[in-house]
Amino acid sequence: MRLRMEAFIKSQQEKIVRELEKVDGKRFRIDKWDRPDGGGGISCVLQDGDVFEKAGVNTSIVYGTLPRAAIAKMRVNHKALDPDVESLEFFAAGLSLVLHPHNPNTPTVHLNYRYFETANADGSSNAWWYGGGTDLTPSYLFDEDVIHFHKAIKVACDAHDRSYYPRFKKWCDDYFYVKHRGEGRGVGGIFFDDLDESEKDQEQLFAFVQDCLEAFLPSYLPIVMRRKDMTFGEKEKMWQQVRRGRYVEFNLVHDRGTSFGLSTPGARVESILMSLPLTARWEYMHEADRGSREERLVNVLKKPVEWV
Amino acid sequence: MRLRMEAFIKSQQEKIVRELEKVDGKRFRIDKWDRPDGGGGISCVLQDGDVFEKAGVNTSIVYGTLPRAAIAKMRVNHKALDPDVESLEFFAAGLSLVLHPHNPNTPTVHLNYRYFETANADGSSNAWWYGGGTDLTPSYLFDEDVIHFHKAIKVACDAHDRSYYPRFKKWCDDYFYVKHRGEGRGVGGIFFDDLDESEKDQEQLFAFVQDCLEAFLPSYLPIVMRRKDMTFGEKEKMWQQVRRGRYVEFNLVHDRGTSFGLSTPGARVESILMSLPLTARWEYMHEADRGSREERLVNVLKKPVEWV
Repeated sequence: MRLRMEAFIKSQQEKIVRELEKVDGKRFRIDKWDRPDGGGGISCVLQDGDVFEKAGVNTSIVYGTLPRAAIAKMRVNHKALDPDVESLEFFAAGLSLVLHPHNPNTPTVHLNYRYFETANADGSSNAWWYGGGTDLTPSYLFDEDVIHFHKAIKVACDAHDRSYYPRFKKWCDDYFYVKHRGEGRGVGGIFFDDLDESEKDQEQLFAFVQDCLEAFLPSYLPIVMRRKDMTFGEKEKMWQQVRRGRYVEFNLVHDRGTSFGLSTPGARVESILMSLPLTARWEYMHEADRGSREERLVNVLKKPVEWV
Repeated sequence: MRLRMEAFIKSQQEKIVRELEKVDGKRFRIDKWDRPDGGGGISCVLQDGDVFEKAGVNTSIVYGTLPRAAIAKMRVNHKALDPDVESLEFFAAGLSLVLHPHNPNTPTVHLNYRYFETANADGSSNAWWYGGGTDLTPSYLFDEDVIHFHKAIKVACDAHDRSYYPRFKKWCDDYFYVKHRGEGRGVGGIFFDDLDESEKDQEQLFAFVQDCLEAFLPSYLPIVMRRKDMTFGEKEKMWQQVRRGRYVEFNLVHDRGTSFGLSTPGARVESILMSLPLTARWEYMHEADRGSREERLVNVLKKPVEWV
């Protein structure tokens, strides 16, 4: 499974980068890197493009020994891990992407799918699981875009288990919640973690993750094509910048993936933090005008909507 | 002590705001707020000023019951707290300020001095302590500015204990360390926490904190006056924005004060996050040119300097 997951995410990375370059017109910068303690990755980043302010599509295959602090963070997601071991061998393969478009009418999107294995010190298998999801973060709300995005994900989920979309949609709303602001990061999508043999067998879960990842381009690109050339003004750009500030707050304060990455020894910080927007803004006591489009977004973020 | 500390920080807040308004030319917005669970504060923020992009000078007097999660965070600083209690009565009075100037040649400065008391459920006193410090974060390094700042603090420290400046300077370098970047947030200053009766008696420590706070304006304003009108270009502004991104990373990922604030029930998020700059930037793989002024700053941040 390690090799199959690796081959799958790398081929998807190539395809996604190719399609995004067609849309943007500019090329991604591609960095291959080795992790001193085992593994490495490929980071593809497009900055200051014509459509995307910053777009990152990364794969990483990381293995080695997890220290106690990282095990503690991982245990939050994977309850079966023994909390008393001093260290653990692990393998992780994943694809992560975050796209921040220039146009405030085009939403930011995030996606991550990953496969984990842990082994005991003697090499015997300890556990395996899949995690991941995808979610949309607009600065301005176009219901048809959000519905299109959720529908595309739901189709991929329904083909495997009718319970997946409602379960993982709720999990997404709960996870991407900016607690100190009392609002969601965006309008959701799906999120799941710790899917192991207690859920379905490994082949079935791999097929599910494959379908989810392959659903990405059709779920998002039509939205970009509709919105990327819409006109906007200074006011809309400012609001986008304020919303980007909230995105940074979630990622640095609450996101367990970022926190886990930054605490993994030998982690490549530039690849982890490629999720941050190129620019962000924090205005003291910034509030949306009553009855405005900005206020409507905030109201939706305060109370998750069933989009499909 | 509660009332004396409160009166002192409020008078200092007024004085600092008055002097900063003289320098900037624009006025602070003043918000008085009540905390539903006990206490309140005064937030003074100047945004888009002539000299300061964003300047916040806040006082808060907060009391009530600390939940277990907040006690756990507080225990990191104050070891004597009983970890097994479910909740604790507390009182905290403090002044915090963060000033982000427009001109990339003018450093950002942060200051915070606070007094804490805890009490048992029956009202009997549990513990008291002082904490605080001040530190400078330049985008461009002018040695004379950093030396001036450190000297002013050292004079205030030396009047109370010759061991304070070297101890608290090192504590500051250790605390304001952006671990995932392997660099300091800035060029330091002083930081201390948990100064209680095992250090000196309450009157002596109060006098020390008073002198530190009164040393602020003379430690910083001369630097602003020297730098605020220096010419700069697009390149310097970009570099400042990238450095502001690092400031955000420290505050949201590592700063225990921010983390404690955001986890305190009923906290005023806008006052806590006034420390974030108005604007920030994250460029993928941004590196300073060899031999440049930008590179010199980064080298100094990687290895703390004895400035006086």
